[in-house]
Amino acid sequence: MSRRILIVGTGLIGASVGLALRAAGFTGEIVGTGPTERTLTIAQSMGAIDSWIAKENAESAATDADLILLAGPVLSILDWMQRLAPVLGEHQLVTDVGSTKVQIVALAAKLYNQPGRARFLPGHPMAGKEAGGAALAEAELFQNAMWLFTPLNHSPHPLESEWRQWIVRFGAHTLDLDATRHDEICAWVSHLPQMLSTALAALLEETFGSDSKGREEVAAIGGRALRETTRLGSSPYSMWRDIALSNSEPIAATLHALEQKLAHLRENLRTPELKEEFRLANEFRARRDS
Amino acid sequence: MSRRILIVGTGLIGASVGLALRAAGFTGEIVGTGPTERTLTIAQSMGAIDSWIAKENAESAATDADLILLAGPVLSILDWMQRLAPVLGEHQLVTDVGSTKVQIVALAAKLYNQPGRARFLPGHPMAGKEAGGAALAEAELFQNAMWLFTPLNHSPHPLESEWRQWIVRFGAHTLDLDATRHDEICAWVSHLPQMLSTALAALLEETFGSDSKGREEVAAIGGRALRETTRLGSSPYSMWRDIALSNSEPIAATLHALEQKLAHLRENLRTPELKEEFRLANEFRARRDS
Repeated sequence: MSRRILIVGTGLIGASVGLALRAAGFTGEIVGTGPTERTLTIAQSMGAIDSWIAKENAESAATDADLILLAGPVLSILDWMQRLAPVLGEHQLVTDVGSTKVQIVALAAKLYNQPGRARFLPGHPMAGKEAGGAALAEAELFQNAMWLFTPLNHSPHPLESEWRQWIVRFGAHTLDLDATRHDEICAWVSHLPQMLSTALAALLEETFGSDSKGREEVAAIGGRALRETTRLGSSPYSMWRDIALSNSEPIAATLHALEQKLAHLRENLRTPELKEEFRLANEFRARRDS
Repeated sequence: MSRRILIVGTGLIGASVGLALRAAGFTGEIVGTGPTERTLTIAQSMGAIDSWIAKENAESAATDADLILLAGPVLSILDWMQRLAPVLGEHQLVTDVGSTKVQIVALAAKLYNQPGRARFLPGHPMAGKEAGGAALAEAELFQNAMWLFTPLNHSPHPLESEWRQWIVRFGAHTLDLDATRHDEICAWVSHLPQMLSTALAALLEETFGSDSKGREEVAAIGGRALRETTRLGSSPYSMWRDIALSNSEPIAATLHALEQKLAHLRENLRTPELKEEFRLANEFRARRDS
């Protein structure tokens, strides 16, 4: 059983994990570290971590921990993986919450899971809010959420089993899949909807932003359809930069497919082919609603 | 004051207008007509209409009415406008609920609003459900909804003023605008969100529909983002065919602009230009959320 857990990055996800661990009955020590002291102070005041250590001294905190959770954007996770690998040992588990997994798995294969090195279990909780930050953290964030894993190998380690059990106690469901498949599916179900919503909201802002009468008309006439299809447009770039950088090819492929589908609809607004596209869309939805 | 109102087409909108009239205190007679006897029977049993007349005898019902509401898809409204114009007179008002207005206004200018002819007030309630039909009708459908008008001329007629007052009593807000502008704004805020949601859902169905493992993964991993951006994909073609046919050019223009915007995002997944698109989208949403 872990006695000490280090959370690297105590933003929305990292701090919520700390709160969820406590709510689920974890009685060991939870230490935080990360780039901004203000975030660490908030996380500590909320009870998400017991104490924190400045990022300059993170190595010493890491060597003392049984389990290290890397909770931040993908590029920062890759940096921490590099930095911590040399100071950790076989008895320790590193896991993460990164939104894309191919690059993390590739680096883990190089630096972890070999004689003398710590274990690495790549993870990805599908949970979040439209804004980030420790102040929005809550123990219930992972209830009924999907927590994905893209393990490097299938020989289970006791610390991995323990971590998976905590996640079940958080109220989350888990699913294991291949990292490449993970990044492709996430491109379809998460990254493409985000890009589409950003594109639509940005286009409307360009079209009506400097036309005050048009803005009023859009606000007056636009209803639930517009609200739902542009809602993700409020997501900040800071949360998406690393996803776009670390999953560019799958995202570009889904975007290209959608561009072609929209062109097909555009060319068939007056032909029976439009009916076939509505039929396909109806089928997709019927499957999800049933 | 109208003593008799004829509702042509007692589907979701037509039957809801009948119920809303009664709820708002209309004490005159409400007669229904339309293409399907089953729909008329349901509307009558719900109390949305007092009686109905088979569509073959609609002319006689129309000559007896003070106000005639054409409630159906745009192409059927255009048909009814042609059919009824010759039998109506100056003392009567025809109004409609069509989703697009340019073709209706053009036909109204030809057949109505001239000596010896009935008045025509083009209207468009922004209300509905994902499915249609009289059985889903409710008196509250128009509460807080926007009811748009695209009047042909600005000399108000007493029957027009009366109809506008009923709509206010339904709990709706009203806004007058030019028909061309109406169709353009609706393309942006309603038709484009519909087409992109249909496109995304159809694309996902094509990609994963015959791959049972993929379907399960999409279902397990897709969350609120996917649900909201594909929700309109359940809208039936029957509700959208006439909109696509009667507003093809504005819809095609918005689709083309979105295709270009998606391509721009795709080409800039790894450049700082992506940040600018997120900024524009954030601004659009901040305006709507404030």
